[in-house]
Order: sequence, then C-alpha cells, then structure tokens
Amino acid sequence: MGTIKLTIAYEGTEFSGYQRQAQGERTVQGELEKALQRLTGQVPKLIAAGRTDAGVHAKGQVVSFTSTARIPVDRWPAALNANLPPDIIVYQAEAVPSSFHARYSAKTKTYQYIVSRRRWPDLFLRRFSYHYPYALNVAKIREAAAALVGEHDFKGFAAAGSPVVTTVRRLERVAVEEVGEELYFTLTGNGFLYKMVRNIVGTLLLVGSGKAEPTLVREILDRGDRRAAGPTAPPQGLTLMSVEY
Amino acid sequence: MGTIKLTIAYEGTEFSGYQRQAQGERTVQGELEKALQRLTGQVPKLIAAGRTDAGVHAKGQVVSFTSTARIPVDRWPAALNANLPPDIIVYQAEAVPSSFHARYSAKTKTYQYIVSRRRWPDLFLRRFSYHYPYALNVAKIREAAAALVGEHDFKGFAAAGSPVVTTVRRLERVAVEEVGEELYFTLTGNGFLYKMVRNIVGTLLLVGSGKAEPTLVREILDRGDRRAAGPTAPPQGLTLMSVEY
Repeated sequence: MGTIKLTIAYEGTEFSGYQRQAQGERTVQGELEKALQRLTGQVPKLIAAGRTDAGVHAKGQVVSFTSTARIPVDRWPAALNANLPPDIIVYQAEAVPSSFHARYSAKTKTYQYIVSRRRWPDLFLRRFSYHYPYALNVAKIREAAAALVGEHDFKGFAAAGSPVVTTVRRLERVAVEEVGEELYFTLTGNGFLYKMVRNIVGTLLLVGSGKAEPTLVREILDRGDRRAAGPTAPPQGLTLMSVEY
Repeated sequence: MGTIKLTIAYEGTEFSGYQRQAQGERTVQGELEKALQRLTGQVPKLIAAGRTDAGVHAKGQVVSFTSTARIPVDRWPAALNANLPPDIIVYQAEAVPSSFHARYSAKTKTYQYIVSRRRWPDLFLRRFSYHYPYALNVAKIREAAAALVGEHDFKGFAAAGSPVVTTVRRLERVAVEEVGEELYFTLTGNGFLYKMVRNIVGTLLLVGSGKAEPTLVREILDRGDRRAAGPTAPPQGLTLMSVEY
C-alpha cells in the first residue's frame, strides 16, 4: 500500500522502447503493466525516470506507482519477477512518500555507451555495444568530450520529435574510459534530450575517426544545428545505468 | 587451398549444439556448412576440437577443413562472417599442414563455467551464466576442486551416451575465482568426457552449499559412480574458451 519506487533492469533488444505504444508493440511498460495486473488485479499509473528508446537497455531505470495491494515492500521484487519475462528484472522496491515522482524527483541520470573496437564482435557484449572496428584517436575524443561538461543549450544534439520547454541541460560528467578493447562513455546530467547521448557519441566518434576536429562540439553547442553533428550512434550500445535522487 | 584452421566463437543459446543433427535442427556445424557452401560452392568435411552441447557457448572453438577454394587465408574470416548469422563469429584463419586435425592434434582444452551469485540475474551475463543466488562456501569448493587436478578416471563425472575407449583424463588446472559476485570455474585438461565439466561444477556447488563434504570428489573418482555426483549444471554457464595445440 502506498507509493512504491522500483529499480529495474531490462535488455532493450526485443522491446520497442520503454513506453507503451498505441499499436500494441512489445514494450517494457506494457510488460510491467501485465505483471502488475496479474499480481494485484490493477494497473496503476506507471511513471518512469526516463523513457528509453527501442533497443536501449537499462540497468538502473526507476519506475514509481501507487498501489493499494497489501504486499510488503520487500516482497515486490520476487512477486513481480515471477510475473515478468526474463529480459526485465526488478532489483529493488522501496516505499517512498506519495510526493515522490520517478521523473520529476530525479536530480541526475547516468547513461553508459559502450563502443567495441575489436576486429570482430565480442560474443558476450554484442547485444550491449556498438561494434566499431576502426581507428580512433581517444585523446581527441576526450578533448571533444570535455567541452560538453557544464550547462549548455544542447539543441544541436537533440533529435526532433519530443517537444520540450527548454533545450538547456547540465552535464556533470562525460567520461571516456578504455577498458580492454572497449570504450566506455559515461554521461551524468540533470536531463537528456531525445537521442542526445547517441548523438553525442556519434559526434565524438566522428572526431575520434579524424573526420572532424574536437572544436566541432563547441560549434554544435554554439550553433544549435543538428546537421553539424555526427550520425546518431545505434541504440544497442546505450544503457541507462542509474537515476540519482 | 589446403587445410585451414578456424578459431570461432558462438553463442549457444539458439543452437542445438555444435554437431549437425539428423533432424535438421539449428546447429553450429550446419550454419558453417551453409556459409561454406555459399562461399565456395562446396561443403568440406568439418572437424571440430570439441562438440559442444545444446546451449553451450564457445569463445575459442577450433574447426579444421580442407578446401580447394582460392581464397587467401587472411580473407577467410571476413568472407565467412559475411555469410554467417550474428551468433557465430570467425575470429581467425590459419593455413596448417594437411596432417593437422582440430580434434586429434589438440593437446588441451580450456572451459570456463560462470556461476552468478547475485540476488537477481545480471542483465549482461544472464545468457552466459548459471544464476545461483544461494550461500556458497568458496573455501570448501576450492578444497574439493583441488582433488580433481591430475590424472584420474573421471567415469563418475561422465554422463552416459558417448562411447569412449577410456574414461581416464588429466586435468592440469581447476581454478575457482571470485570476480565481483560471479564465480569463475576454469578447467584445463587433455580431454573432457560427455557433460564432465557440468557434472564437476554441479558437484562443486553441492559441496559449496554444504550438502556434501569436499571429500565427495575423491569418493566419486574412486567409485566411478555418477549417482554420487551433484546434478549436472545447466549448459548456459559453460563456454569453451580455447584449444591448445
């Protein structure tokens, strides 16, 4: 009973994104609603911290809802997991004040994007990374990434589609780490525009490949012109890692 | 032209094992043969170092064959990968003497088995590990594992089915490593009987869970009785890592 905050993970491979679709496609929200229906006989209104796109994964998505079901809070993960397909996992459930809102209460979100630079795809990582077996100058990528940190108008890194009041966001961290033959991009910010992480990674790869200079990032921020940015990196490399409250 | 040694990886999830089946089920060998047929117009006789079971993965399986196709040896991986489904990857091709035999020339093979001890499955590892969220005494597992090293009659760890001349094998290494919340079992040996690794891991988990003492391993080796061993661990935790020549 009351408001519940769930921390969930899912593999995006076989989902048409988080959000329920009119057309009845397979979505994370749809599967969660089915599980809640089976478990409680009710379909509460679900609020997610971030609506991930088709093919994008989550290791720390947060979903909140209010339920009248008499299930002790520590029993929710097992009860839901028993009713969910294996590509969605509920890790944690917490009782939160009714004022809690998974989306509006979030202070920052952290996304990770994995680029795999191996000659051939890694078997364990192929569903969770972008296979990019080309030469990259990591120092130039880091130089370009540094220009993204701070408060900026990220309009030039946003895809058209989602109407927003403002395109100004603050990125607290843009880390580029080499782990074996993979490049891990980790971005923490107070908000992300539609396809912003994938457009940033696509642009950083353009810089890393030598097809653009690190100053391109500054130009895109200044001009707000999506056409100057690199191609949108594919969804399977992206994972919503955590939401900070 | 000549004899080719391929090093390949595959995800076993959607295969009925390595070996071609009479019934026309999806197998690694079958997919390799289809790719070779498309590429060269011929289906050479394929010899694999080890015939992995349904659901078992490989990161370093070795397959040899003789071909009259005029493809330079360094072009084989790209040419085959272009004709293979994404769950099989050819990593390397080498020209070898015609006396090379992927199975009989192998000195040792190395298998890895991943047991994931997390409360709930890890998203990235769920297809490549056995989710076992129960208490385990790793010191007792190591004690039991040590008794496996050396030359023994492993009859008690073999499943019935595959006729073999002798059930004596030599294990050079049985390592049990804790990596985060996963347990990695790594076994190197001069040969492995049918389901031997999975029977060994099942028995070690029985010991780790406290349901048997580490001395059980010695008893199974001495008695050669499969019924004393633990349950066969499921296939998805097992990966053929490499074959040493």
